[in-house]
Formats: sequence, C-alpha cells, structure tokens
Amino acid sequence: MSFEYLTNVPLKKAREDYLKLLKEKGFDSKTETIPACRACGRITARPVYAHICAPHYAASAMDGVAVKAGDTFGATETTPVTLKTEQFVELDTGDPIPEGRDAVIMVEDIVRKPDGSISIHAPAAPWQHIRQIGEDVCAGEMILGAHMEVSPAAIGAMIAGGVMELVVIKKPVVGIIPTGDEIIPPCSDPKPGDILEFNSSIFSAMVKGWGAESRTYPIVPDKFEEIKATVSKAAEDCDLVILNAGSSAGREDYSAEAIAQLGQVLYHGIAIKPGKPAILGCLGAKPVLGVPGYPVSGIIVIEQLLKPLIDRWYHSSPAPEKTAAATLTRPVVSSLKYQEFVRVRMGYVGEKLMASPLSRGSGVVSSFMKADGILTIPQGVEGYEAGKQVEIQLLSREERLKNTLVVIGSHDPLLDELANMMHLEDPRVYMSSSHVGSMGGIMAIRRGEAHAAGCHLLDTETGEYNLSFIRKYFPKGGVRLLRCVGRQQGLMLQKGNPLNIREFKDIAGKDVRYVNRQKGSGTRILADYLCKKEGIAPEKIYGYEREELTHTSVAAQIACGSADAGMGIYSAAKLYGLDFLPVCVEEYDLLIPDHAWDSPMVRQLVASLKSPAFREKIESMGGYTLERPGEIIELGY
Amino acid sequence: MSFEYLTNVPLKKAREDYLKLLKEKGFDSKTETIPACRACGRITARPVYAHICAPHYAASAMDGVAVKAGDTFGATETTPVTLKTEQFVELDTGDPIPEGRDAVIMVEDIVRKPDGSISIHAPAAPWQHIRQIGEDVCAGEMILGAHMEVSPAAIGAMIAGGVMELVVIKKPVVGIIPTGDEIIPPCSDPKPGDILEFNSSIFSAMVKGWGAESRTYPIVPDKFEEIKATVSKAAEDCDLVILNAGSSAGREDYSAEAIAQLGQVLYHGIAIKPGKPAILGCLGAKPVLGVPGYPVSGIIVIEQLLKPLIDRWYHSSPAPEKTAAATLTRPVVSSLKYQEFVRVRMGYVGEKLMASPLSRGSGVVSSFMKADGILTIPQGVEGYEAGKQVEIQLLSREERLKNTLVVIGSHDPLLDELANMMHLEDPRVYMSSSHVGSMGGIMAIRRGEAHAAGCHLLDTETGEYNLSFIRKYFPKGGVRLLRCVGRQQGLMLQKGNPLNIREFKDIAGKDVRYVNRQKGSGTRILADYLCKKEGIAPEKIYGYEREELTHTSVAAQIACGSADAGMGIYSAAKLYGLDFLPVCVEEYDLLIPDHAWDSPMVRQLVASLKSPAFREKIESMGGYTLERPGEIIELGY
Repeated sequence: MSFEYLTNVPLKKAREDYLKLLKEKGFDSKTETIPACRACGRITARPVYAHICAPHYAASAMDGVAVKAGDTFGATETTPVTLKTEQFVELDTGDPIPEGRDAVIMVEDIVRKPDGSISIHAPAAPWQHIRQIGEDVCAGEMILGAHMEVSPAAIGAMIAGGVMELVVIKKPVVGIIPTGDEIIPPCSDPKPGDILEFNSSIFSAMVKGWGAESRTYPIVPDKFEEIKATVSKAAEDCDLVILNAGSSAGREDYSAEAIAQLGQVLYHGIAIKPGKPAILGCLGAKPVLGVPGYPVSGIIVIEQLLKPLIDRWYHSSPAPEKTAAATLTRPVVSSLKYQEFVRVRMGYVGEKLMASPLSRGSGVVSSFMKADGILTIPQGVEGYEAGKQVEIQLLSREERLKNTLVVIGSHDPLLDELANMMHLEDPRVYMSSSHVGSMGGIMAIRRGEAHAAGCHLLDTETGEYNLSFIRKYFPKGGVRLLRCVGRQQGLMLQKGNPLNIREFKDIAGKDVRYVNRQKGSGTRILADYLCKKEGIAPEKIYGYEREELTHTSVAAQIACGSADAGMGIYSAAKLYGLDFLPVCVEEYDLLIPDHAWDSPMVRQLVASLKSPAFREKIESMGGYTLERPGEIIELGY
Repeated sequence: MSFEYLTNVPLKKAREDYLKLLKEKGFDSKTETIPACRACGRITARPVYAHICAPHYAASAMDGVAVKAGDTFGATETTPVTLKTEQFVELDTGDPIPEGRDAVIMVEDIVRKPDGSISIHAPAAPWQHIRQIGEDVCAGEMILGAHMEVSPAAIGAMIAGGVMELVVIKKPVVGIIPTGDEIIPPCSDPKPGDILEFNSSIFSAMVKGWGAESRTYPIVPDKFEEIKATVSKAAEDCDLVILNAGSSAGREDYSAEAIAQLGQVLYHGIAIKPGKPAILGCLGAKPVLGVPGYPVSGIIVIEQLLKPLIDRWYHSSPAPEKTAAATLTRPVVSSLKYQEFVRVRMGYVGEKLMASPLSRGSGVVSSFMKADGILTIPQGVEGYEAGKQVEIQLLSREERLKNTLVVIGSHDPLLDELANMMHLEDPRVYMSSSHVGSMGGIMAIRRGEAHAAGCHLLDTETGEYNLSFIRKYFPKGGVRLLRCVGRQQGLMLQKGNPLNIREFKDIAGKDVRYVNRQKGSGTRILADYLCKKEGIAPEKIYGYEREELTHTSVAAQIACGSADAGMGIYSAAKLYGLDFLPVCVEEYDLLIPDHAWDSPMVRQLVASLKSPAFREKIESMGGYTLERPGEIIELGY
C-alpha cells in the first residue's frame, strides 16, 4: 500500500499538507453566472463594474420648476426676474430635467402670476437641486471587487448600475457516502444491531452552513468494490467527498484502501481525539475525506479538515473563532498523544464564566447539541485541573450564556419542562441542567458554579428533607431553598411485575437484576438507606454497582429488559409503561445562592414555578404533589 | 381620515405601539411539520421528545467477547476461569449484546485455547464495556424545548431518538409591492425618467436573511384602486406586507389612504431620518408597512420596523447589535427633530478605530453597500464634532476592519483595481477608499485617520509633484511617499469634439458648459493653475462652480451631454468614449505614515503595486506611465 497506515500527524501539519497537496493537484472553485437579484450572500468570482450611471439621468431633487440658470442671473429681492411659461417646466422630485434646462427652483421660491408666468427673487446656480447623473454609481466604476460577499445593498447598487447578472463562485457540492452493513436509513423502529444513519444529515447541515451543497448517496454495505465504485462516482459528480465510517483499522475498513487504489491517501490517522482515524485523500483534484463513524468524531473531523477546504474554495478568510476565558468546574484528563476537543456547557455565575466538561463519548451526539463551547487541549498536555482558567471556543452566543440559568444537581424531567416554560415566557432566558446528583449540586453551589441545584436529600435521623444538609454545608447561610415538588419515589419494575416483587428487600432476590443510580444522587442515598434499614448487604444485590445518571435512563434499562428493577420516580416509570412499587414521597427542591437571586433567570424560574401552566404540566406527568411551588422554604438558621 | 397624518413619533414608541397593536390583533406565527433532516436553522414550535432510546439496544463498546458476568466471578491472575464456546459470543464494537449476556471482555484480555474455549484472568463486572441503552438519548426525554434553533447536532440527536419529523415555526412570507408610474423592472437601458425597481430585490434579500420568505408583486402604477386591490390581495396571500414608495405626502401618495380604507393606519411619519414617511398599518392581524421609495430610507425602515415583527414571529430575542467605539473623522450635523442614522466607513489606524460619515443622500444605495457601520444620533441631539468618540453599530466584522487599508485622498480608478488585487492575493486584506482630493488626503494623514493618501499636487513654482507639499505639511517627517503611477491629465470633451476645443483656454468659450472637480482636489488645483496661467477669470467659465468628486463622474456628465468639457485623466475619458485633449503628465503617488508601514495591508499594497498583474491592468486602462511603482520616493528632508 502506498499510504502511511494509521499515522498520528498533528492536526495543523495534516491540514497544511492536505491544502498544499490539493492546491498542487489543482483544487479550485468553479464559477457560475446568476441574476443579481438572487446573489445575496454569494461570493463574486470577479470584479463587478457598473454598466450605466445611477441615476442614469439628471433628475430633480425637489418639487419645483426647471429653468435655464442663465435666465435667472441678476434676480434679487428687489429686482425679481420674470420667467414666461415657455422658460420653465414644472416638475416633481425624481422627474428628469428637460433638455436645455440646468437648474431647479423649489416650488416655495417662486411667485405665480395670473398670466401663468412666475417671478423669482434670487438667481439659480447652474445644477442647483439637480440629482446629477452617477451620484450613486458611475458607469465603468467597480461596484464590487472579486471574492467579496454580496450584501442586500450591493444588489441594489448592481441593479442601479445596470448589472443584471454577475459571475459568482459556484457552491461546492459535497458528496456524502454512508457505509456499513449495520447502517440503516432513519426510522423509528430499528432492530437491535441496526444503526440509524443520521451522520449524513448532520454533515449535510454543517456543510450547507458553510455555503456548500450536499448530495447524500445511498448507504453502501461493507463491500470493497461497491465502496470503491461509489467513491469513484461521487468524485466525478461532486467537488468534495466525505466517505463516512470504515475509517478505523478494523476488519471491515476498506475506506483507506479504496481511496488509495483510486487516487492517493496523504494521511490515515490524525493526532486528534475524537477523530483520530480520519483519512486525508484525494482523487485527482477532488478531496476525499474518510470520516469516522461515531457522530462526534465525524463532526470534529469535518469541522477541522473539511471546512478549511470550503474556505479555500471560496478564497475567503474565515471569521476568527469566538472565544472566551472560562473557569473549569471539573478536572479534564487528556492524552499526551492527541490534541483533544472537549465539549463543555457554560454559564455565567456572577461575573464568572464557568465551563463544565460534557460526556466525552464519541457516540453521544446529544452532548454536542448541548455544548456551549469546545475546549481544545493541545497535544502534549496532560489535561487541566478544576478551577483552571481556559480559553473556550464558543458555540453559543455570549448573550445567551449571560441569560442561562445553570442548574447542577439532581435530575428530574420537570427541569426540562421548566426550561421550556421559562424560555417560552421570556425568549432571552435559557436553562442548562447537568445531572450530578443532589450532593453534586450542593457542592456546585458551594463552589459557585451554579445558580440552582435540584436536591432531595433525606436526613435519615429526622426524616426531614434537604434542610439539615443545607445547614451542614452552608453553616453561614447565603442560600435559599425554593419549594419545588413532592415526588413519588419507588421501585420501577418490568411491566406486569413478572418477578413478583412486593417490597424493597425483594430486590436482593436471586433472579433480580437491579440497576442503580450514581453515588451522591438522592435516589442512591435513599436506596442505600433502605438497604441498611432492611439489613441487606448491597453486594447481595445483582447489578447494584450498575449506575445510570437519570431516572429516565434507569427506566429505559428496565423497559428494554436489561434490568428488572431500579429505584426512581413515578413519572419515569409511567413514561416507559413500567410497573411501580411506591416507597415514599420525597421533597424535591431547588437550592439557590443569594447572589443569583436577583437575576432575570431566577425571577423567571420562580414565576414559572408558580404558573398554572407548570401545575398543569406536572399533574399530567403524574407522581408529583404540588404544595406552593416557587415559595421560599424557611431554613431556620 | 382615521389616522394621524404625518405624525413625528419617536421610533421606540412607534415600534412598541405597533407590536402592541399587532399582538392585540392576533399577529402570531404559523407552524408546519418538516422532516428532521431538513430542520437545520429552523425554530421549534413545541418541545421535541425522543421516541426511542439511543442507542436503542445495548451494544458492545469494544471488540471482544460477550459473557454472563456471573460466569467470570472468581477469576484471578493465578486462578483463571475457562469459558466454553457456548458461554461466550465474539463480537465487534457496536454489535448488540446477545440475550443472556451482560458484560464484554476485551479481545486483549482473553487467552484462546486450542479447543475453542477461552480463559480469562479477571472477573467481568456486570455491564462492563457495554454501551447502555439510552446513553445518548432516552425515550421520552426532551431533546429540544420550544422556540429553540435546530443545530446540525440536534438533527443527529432527533434522528437517533427516532424523531423523523418535528413541528417548527413556519417562515413568514413577506409580500413586497413596488408602486409608482415611473418605476420599471430592472434593465440595462432605461429611458430618462425611468426608475429601476431594485428596492424589492434589496428588501427580499434582507428579509430572507432574517428567516422569512418573500413574494414580490408586479409593479403597481399610481392608481388608488389598483394599489388598494394589491394590498388587499397581498395581505391575504402573505403574513406581512411591504408597500413600497408612495409613502410621503406628495400628490401621488395613496399608500396611507389605501391602508386606512382597508384596515388601520397606526402612524404615518416616524421621527427618523432617513425613513420619516414610513406608514405603520395593518389589515386585521397582518402588518402592512408603508416604506419610502428611496432605497436607503427603505432599508432603514425595514430594519427598524419590519425586523422586530419577524423576531416577534419567531419568538426570538434578537442577537444584540455588535457595536464598537470609534472616533469621528468629520463633524456630523443632525436635526433635533429626528433620530438620524448615518452610514460610516471605518478602519483601524494604529490602535484607533476611525469612523468617517458617508454620503447621506437617501438615494445613494452604494453608500449603504460601502458602509461598515451605522452611527445613530438620538432625537434632540444636534450632531457631533469631529474627534468625538461615538458608539457605532457594526455592519462589517471587526476582523475585517482591522485588516482594512484606509485610503483617503485623491481619486483614481486604479485604487479600486489595487483593492481588488490586494484582496485576491490575501483574502484577509481589504481596502476602503474615500475621495476627498489630494489636500484632503494630506490632512487625513496628518490627523491620523488614514493609512494612505493618493495625491498629485503640483508645485507651480518648481513644477515638482507632491514633495514640496509633503515637506510643508510634515516638517518633521514621519511619512513616506510610495511611487504609484504617472498619469495623463487633460480635457475630456464630447465625442468628436463638436465645440472644436483646441486648447485649455477654449473652455471659457461662450457655448462651453464646463464641469469641475471639487476644491482641494489635485485636478482642481491644476485647473485653477491653468486658468491663472492663461489669464482666464474662473467666473467667465460657465459651470466652473459645478463640482464632481471623481474623474469618472466628470466623464459621466460629459458623456450624457449635460456638460461639454472637464478636466480629468485619460482612463476616465476612455471609459466613456470621450475625446481627450492632453494637458500634462502628473505624478500620482501614495503618502503613507510611518506607523502604518509595517502592517500586512501596506506590505500587500507594495507587493501588489510591484506585481506584473498591476502593470498589465494599468496598461490596459491607458493613459498611465509606470516607473518603478511600489518604490519609496526619497523625500530629502
């Protein structure tokens, strides 16, 4: 094989070498002629010159009369000049100046006489009140240079200048080839093992945002000749090609070999994470980019390696990335071998912009959707400590970050509903919620990382919720507790309860596969407490160490049959049609630091909690009780 | 009539009252269901919930074998456990976990035996190396709230969650009705008095940029019933209506009356300039906005009064305007009666961002195209002095402003060609040139407002160009003079020279209509010098006070027959096919302050001046001589 197999080239070098190779091969934009009126946002391929002057005729700039200035010379207040009807022409603003006239006198400055003549009391200077030919654009003048974006006003200037069409850079067509035996077209009832093909929809939306068009080919199975034939066809049809999946070095990975046989592979393997198995290849002057199958890897590779090609196509200098300095809420570990891209959620807490690393799973496309920014950790850096000031590439508008309520703590689906209601009521306001459990939320508030924390912590001594924990962790106060909901906790069970689980201690039964919540979550604390109370050793419960981060994901494991029981709230069980064994009603409240209290986000939060719409929504979800939500709970310091 | 005729309502009040009225009338967005894969950039109308989990099956996260974790308990380095072929299943990353297995052991961690069994040296924890169901998205989870923009990653998350289509806010349709007897469809050979209808193309491009669709109606003549019928039809077909022109109080202005008869006019006349004659009306819940005919007025009215309606339609909080503090290079006078919008060109000179007011003519659409920003002067403020620090709403990217070569001074068409070449060579670099004459350029450099000034100033004592002026105005140095071109100056004359002008002094002839350049321009100084030399009193020359700002516009006046002669350069005469009577060859150079010398823009300027492409272009234009362009001229201090 002619290519370096699984290289580990630094990104910058890979990008530069790739651009250089493609330039040598003749990679360049095409042009097309389009009507000026449809050119907005397009990039000119060559300079645009006016064909005619605008205005193309001398026009009156006022309502009045057109005269020959020479006829008026000598007129003064005391010695007015009279103009006979044949010496002047009445006209409105915009009317052309008649042949032989070269000045306009405003209607206010003339005195009409009974015989139809007019008298004037001041001379008219030649060309007064006349909009000269070419005042806007002169014929032959350059309206726009080459490689300039056409704005709405430029369309006006072109048409005014008689330019009906112009030559612009053609939008490049990006061919997208999904491959893989397990890949199926999107549907809502896939079978186990089927992977929905949604990468092409993501990539297509991305390249369209960069000014390209996309053409997605039918899914190609893992058959070498078929892949090769499709790549060859796509390179003929399109200007750039994305070959998706099959770019790692596994047994079904024909991509690199197919590209190498058809053309050339420059690099296979880039020192980035995610995105390492990328293939940089070409067929003649057509770039063919092998992109990993995991969506997040694919997004990063396309952003880092395809976008520069589109920028080159348009001869444009890309807008610099918007960045902001932020404080990391958690440590991030990185491999020395790779330049890593870590998605982060962000929010302003007080004056401080905080960045919380999101899931780093390459398959978790929702984490990309939730990301407000990307933290880049250079190759050769081991990672960063919590509290470190880092530079983040912003994906969200700074204005949005300033109006985002940062909620960290225990998970409840009502948070999403609240987020929705808050934004509906006030479109400036957003919520970003991270699920780290009740204790995690308390700690986040202590560290000043959040505006609110959902918590439901049972003091097993007093049976009281939340208050004793807050008094313990905030001995000097500085926080308020906002009443939210009471919620039904219990055991979620397979539909019909086939294992006949009747009380909590039955989860220690021989055939019961339990699924737990993560340590530090209120639900886990409750489960641990119930174990202790019932005298069950956790190691006797099969799957007690299997941790999920939300009620919904616990319910999902039970619904699909991979577990039999798990502790969670009624609404989650209801959502998945599971059986539910009630255990207790707990208080789920929101802890809010005083400094956040007077923000528009918290004001809207309180308003939404108190709204009838919230009550209605919560009641429809089931398993909640509502007792004065939105009220402050007396902490009794 | 039921409406306040020609009111002068402050903009803010007008906008608020208009939104309030429309809300009361029931103005609201429509929705539509579209495929998830085509939803990028669209705004959700309601929350989107996942239908299925993603992954929707438990999948191996590694290449290896699937086992029942329980079978492996007790395995250690010294006491390995052997699994028979029926106890494990080989699988690849992404493969579904077979029924009855609940852990994956990596291929690296197994030892294969000849009989097909494997031995392992550590127990497998339940669910190790398994990608759990719902790791990305759980069924029932809210993927996106209402009124949220769909990103490429959100498309992926939706499809992964089995959401094939979603309800989004329908794009509003803006109907655009051009009116006026003098208005004709765009063409390149209009007759005098014809006005090309390009406003609808500008407005259409603007509203598309804000997420709307547009429908332009055929031009309606100034006939009341036809206007009324078209407004009525457009209000039926579309969601918002723009009625263009006919909004002032002149004799053909039926717009307000037509809207009033069909529905309601809230205000007619807003305290803004340009844009005063705007009409804020509605037919039921459909806004109908009467927009002035001058393009710049129309752009301002649409931006200020239509965009907020589209934002309201989308329930979005618009991105805050990007602003920057800049120093005014020239004073701006404003009427106390109006809030004024002044277009400015901008550029960084040194660290200082400078803003130069552009032409304020409402008909000069090219000035809007050239504008880098808008200066708003509040109602009740008389204007600002030169040097004042003002807040400017940016239309150009700040990055672009930082890389823009600001050229102020004498005009020559070669500046546009140079601008084009510089940007072609380095896409980051732009040029912005303002034509204020050679002396204006020298003053701009002295005031630190420009990076370069084109000048061609004849020292009438020595016959030398530029040097003596520079020594006079920069006695301490601090500037360099960059050799540009020699150019042929002369009299531009009607084609065929019908008045038989043979030498300069013939312009004082009885029938000769002269057109001059503005005071302070090198060409004017030359003309003044020639008058003096020939002993001609300027007041003897008809039209000597008629001033144009560029060679091209002088040529344009002669070409259209509104003048017979004017001083200018050969290339302008050639462009318009005029006769040309050579007078002298002058030096046209670029004056550059030392502080700008080491910028990428000036480096590119010098490179472009020295390039063969420049020589080729300049030679094709005619009337220039090229002697080492791009070289520094010794100033000999």
